[in-house]
Amino acid sequence: MTKEQHSHEHGHHHDHNDFTDYTAAVKAYRETFASKADVMDQAPDPAVREMVKYMDEQGVENCFDRFDKQKPHCTFGLAGVCCRTCSLGPCKITERSPRGTCGADADLIVARNLVRAAAGGVAAHGARACEVMLTLKKAAVGEVDLPILGKETVRNMASAFGLATKDKSVEELANEIADILLEDMSRTVPGPHRTLEAVATPERRQTWKELGLLPVGAYHEVFEALHQTTVGTQGDWRKAMDQFMRLGIAFSMNSVVGGSIASDCLYGTPKRTTVKANLAALKTDTVNIAIHGHAPMLATKVIEAARSDKFVKMAEEAGAAGIQFYGICCSGLSSLYRLGGVIPLSNANGSELVLATGALDLWLADIQEVFPGIMDVADCYKTVVVTTNESNRLPGAEHIGYRRDLEDLDKLPELADRIVTRAIESFTNRRDVQRHIPDHEMEAEVGFSLETLDAHYGCMERVASAIINGQIKGIINLAGCTNTRIVYEKAIVEVVDILLKNNVLVFTNGCASFPMAKLGYCSKKALNKCGEKLQIFLRGELPPVWHFGECIDNAHAVATFREIAGYAGHQMKDMPFAEVTPEWSNEKGVGAALAFRMLGFDSYHCVHAPVQGSEKVRDFLYGGTRELLGSSMKVDTDPKKLAAMIIADFEEARSNLCWR
Amino acid sequence: MTKEQHSHEHGHHHDHNDFTDYTAAVKAYRETFASKADVMDQAPDPAVREMVKYMDEQGVENCFDRFDKQKPHCTFGLAGVCCRTCSLGPCKITERSPRGTCGADADLIVARNLVRAAAGGVAAHGARACEVMLTLKKAAVGEVDLPILGKETVRNMASAFGLATKDKSVEELANEIADILLEDMSRTVPGPHRTLEAVATPERRQTWKELGLLPVGAYHEVFEALHQTTVGTQGDWRKAMDQFMRLGIAFSMNSVVGGSIASDCLYGTPKRTTVKANLAALKTDTVNIAIHGHAPMLATKVIEAARSDKFVKMAEEAGAAGIQFYGICCSGLSSLYRLGGVIPLSNANGSELVLATGALDLWLADIQEVFPGIMDVADCYKTVVVTTNESNRLPGAEHIGYRRDLEDLDKLPELADRIVTRAIESFTNRRDVQRHIPDHEMEAEVGFSLETLDAHYGCMERVASAIINGQIKGIINLAGCTNTRIVYEKAIVEVVDILLKNNVLVFTNGCASFPMAKLGYCSKKALNKCGEKLQIFLRGELPPVWHFGECIDNAHAVATFREIAGYAGHQMKDMPFAEVTPEWSNEKGVGAALAFRMLGFDSYHCVHAPVQGSEKVRDFLYGGTRELLGSSMKVDTDPKKLAAMIIADFEEARSNLCWR
Repeated sequence: MTKEQHSHEHGHHHDHNDFTDYTAAVKAYRETFASKADVMDQAPDPAVREMVKYMDEQGVENCFDRFDKQKPHCTFGLAGVCCRTCSLGPCKITERSPRGTCGADADLIVARNLVRAAAGGVAAHGARACEVMLTLKKAAVGEVDLPILGKETVRNMASAFGLATKDKSVEELANEIADILLEDMSRTVPGPHRTLEAVATPERRQTWKELGLLPVGAYHEVFEALHQTTVGTQGDWRKAMDQFMRLGIAFSMNSVVGGSIASDCLYGTPKRTTVKANLAALKTDTVNIAIHGHAPMLATKVIEAARSDKFVKMAEEAGAAGIQFYGICCSGLSSLYRLGGVIPLSNANGSELVLATGALDLWLADIQEVFPGIMDVADCYKTVVVTTNESNRLPGAEHIGYRRDLEDLDKLPELADRIVTRAIESFTNRRDVQRHIPDHEMEAEVGFSLETLDAHYGCMERVASAIINGQIKGIINLAGCTNTRIVYEKAIVEVVDILLKNNVLVFTNGCASFPMAKLGYCSKKALNKCGEKLQIFLRGELPPVWHFGECIDNAHAVATFREIAGYAGHQMKDMPFAEVTPEWSNEKGVGAALAFRMLGFDSYHCVHAPVQGSEKVRDFLYGGTRELLGSSMKVDTDPKKLAAMIIADFEEARSNLCWR
Repeated sequence: MTKEQHSHEHGHHHDHNDFTDYTAAVKAYRETFASKADVMDQAPDPAVREMVKYMDEQGVENCFDRFDKQKPHCTFGLAGVCCRTCSLGPCKITERSPRGTCGADADLIVARNLVRAAAGGVAAHGARACEVMLTLKKAAVGEVDLPILGKETVRNMASAFGLATKDKSVEELANEIADILLEDMSRTVPGPHRTLEAVATPERRQTWKELGLLPVGAYHEVFEALHQTTVGTQGDWRKAMDQFMRLGIAFSMNSVVGGSIASDCLYGTPKRTTVKANLAALKTDTVNIAIHGHAPMLATKVIEAARSDKFVKMAEEAGAAGIQFYGICCSGLSSLYRLGGVIPLSNANGSELVLATGALDLWLADIQEVFPGIMDVADCYKTVVVTTNESNRLPGAEHIGYRRDLEDLDKLPELADRIVTRAIESFTNRRDVQRHIPDHEMEAEVGFSLETLDAHYGCMERVASAIINGQIKGIINLAGCTNTRIVYEKAIVEVVDILLKNNVLVFTNGCASFPMAKLGYCSKKALNKCGEKLQIFLRGELPPVWHFGECIDNAHAVATFREIAGYAGHQMKDMPFAEVTPEWSNEKGVGAALAFRMLGFDSYHCVHAPVQGSEKVRDFLYGGTRELLGSSMKVDTDPKKLAAMIIADFEEARSNLCWR
């Protein structure tokens, strides 16, 4: 037992007068917050700078205005010491009031708030995953007319799960897989977590088991997280952190990997494709439909329908040169690598900028990262917003969606037809709307995955050798949303610029991948951004940033990391690998970074989690987990310093492995 | 479609500049908050007044000190307009900033915060319920050596669930029942909710179905609640309120009724018993053990063990006159009506006062309402605190508990032995500790339930007739924790005093039942507090306040209400019935009042929910639900006015039923 543990076990209820004075730290942090003026000046994407200025001139509000109006941000909230869990409060920890009414101190309050944030992340990705798992099941048993396109994934997973496959159709196996995924999601009676057992490395399973962190399943751990954090329940911040870590495993194994398996079974794995990105790719003569959110079921049907002769003809009759799709956030990305030709424009924080171009006829919003703020902008430019999911309605939007129990999922083609028809109507009604389209676009290649990389390289041995011989110093997974605290996309771009120069290869997925795509990093034309060694490795064949798709495609990134580590003969935790989410901003972001740490990756950020109010929790996250998990969380608001930290850590990892 | 709905569907995204100025309302509300000085002066229980003064003299802190130090409480938190869901904030709605960074307005933020609170409540009671369901299953299949004591409940529920019973043992049926309860708790694939179908009235099931509010199950709805309320997902406050209501049904049908069925199957239904209550019942010559929390499994074993010859002898050898148990919060109450002789002392807010008597040798804390503040008081008086559940650890406490997966539940007898041994050791070590025991105690009868009332009256027809003929004006279910915003227990007592005088019969359970028990309302000696008619009805046979047990025993109260309504020939929603939680204070309290409203009961409170920041949400809760559910929420910080409101509403209900 270490001294720290000892003091924890026996003494720390006497420590509650050890008030951590977080006020100076929070004040200093708050002073780094960006403003709208900073975005107009310093955002790396010229199209962003132009659109923010344009909206400003037009008097149309966006998230950058609202963020400025929220200043100064609440000190207690930023420090994590605000507790609204019960109505004996609200409480806040200050020097004068070092404990809440119930007696909770800063450590406990900060830890409980983190647990609830992680639970929100598990539930968000998990709810999406459940929908896809259930859709897979319905497709498998013929309740909905959707082909099982990922036949190879079905066969591979059937084998990974140890299913008897003889004489079974792909549909039968897909149904069994869906049942396993759903059971792993929701069991009440503790038992083997089959996804985890099939997917996690033996080393990780052993580590998690020894720490008592194996999750029962995502539903149970979320339920238990809320239970523990209700008033007067978990009183030990360190035990709360155990639940936090457990949620990280559930995030990874159920919400992300489980969801990804279901998607891959249903829709097949990503295909490499090249496309134009950024606002200049907006066409002015086509019916323009934006796909925004995270749920693939209806979005893919809408794209298929729009490409049918019937609607191509209807669009032509309306005077359009065709129907064009654009991607906002994740469902746009997955549609792109599955169906091709979906132009990536922006993540959630930039969605209002896209609407303000006036170029969109219909905005298809499914779930998550759909900011309510979009409605006013859509109104100004007469864009029809259609919501499709009961979990994500928007006042003022039209709703064309399926039921929350998915009982009417067989109506998807009919819903898709209505949506495309509505887009064409909108095109006709919007001829008079002013367009403002900045002149910036780049080429982007997407659709990287273990499968597409194996197709390119034969196997991952070549990449592993390049790491060992130093052509690649290390590999990061670049992800995370963007955050108004930071000049929009600036931290992402600055970190990547430095890393590429230092021969760090970049995998990317989700919202952080948008600046990469929009600004040309996902194109071979960006090879001049790389250090010499990395250029040699890439041989002019592949771009320096490998775009893995939407945020849950970090499952594909992890599969690739694992394969590379395997060829290098080491555990992932010992490799020069990192999860980098410089501008993360939400509960899924908390979950994603945590999940990577549970897998043994250090995580790097320019945004502080609300832990400045508790030395104990902060120190545990920033260092204490290393002994347990081989990983920790690292934060610096300066992107350049963050990049330097990543490089130094990669060099240390390489040195530990005796690689030069 | 009503005008309100119409405006909601098509226009309310234009309303966000309709800033509700909540500041005056919050300020006025805050001015009603009690202080520790008020508690010392005005608390209805003289033992409470004495102990708060005593602790003050001794310089030992309790929740009343800490509440005072938290003043002034945060305006934004109280109004419900503080949003910490993502790190684009924290945001708060003010006149200057009518929307959060994402665009969420006050209505959405207030609604989302409520949804999360309700989810916390469902999870808290639900986690406890899951443990008992799983224990029932383990007992049924022989994995743990616990007898199935509720044979009649097993048979009744088997019949209610339509199980084939021929040739099946009680254990086999109990196992099937546990499986149904667990499946209703956790299903992912929407399907019939068998508990709900077996227990809810046809009228309620129809109402819920028509409103689209039928829950899939508690796990799913909690998961979905977190999903909807994460950033950029549910954008429509009214749809968020649908999820809120769905959680209310899950709270009722899974977390409470499901848990109650499992408890009743395992431990049998309540038995009527009479006991001394309040601090003077603390003995000075016995080994004194407090049972605190909500989980029955280990508490009941500890009591059984302590009453065995082995420990009676061991206690005698240590110089004690025996081993005495005391009840804090709910597991104390359920132990009392099941095993008898457990003296009820206090709910959670008063737990520090009980510890400060210096009379407790061991404090057995399981889950929920175990304030971290107890540890310092326990230290001062050398009381050994033992935690038993991984969800509820306390730094500084000793931990003697079972594993989170319940795999070692067969070790319960061994754990119980260790705990009783530890209590006797502590008795020996604590001879020098000063006692301060106020001289106040009362007699209390507990253990009311439909079964015990049927045993008394034959059936509920007699009670129904008394309501119809006006001997009983109406019946309330008095529950809810207590809240430091109110002079401790004062609102509860004042409301009940007025209602009894006006011939309103009182059912009580959970934390609010403590002042009733401690102050003599659960004794026939309190019949003089009743109006003449109610006295006639009670005939000197039963007390005016019927104590149904712990908080989840509102399942028994509801079963009784339902039976009475049935004999009266009306739906519960049309009867003069009410849920009254004057001093509620936590997420389970949000859930409980909501659950009763879902059942058609109006709910009455002296504590505001954090809805003052949104007119729309407040109006929906306070009135808009009436058309949908036949019920709404009513709040007045003045207990006298609250009581008057209840009486007026009962008179209106009677008038509608043409009863005088």
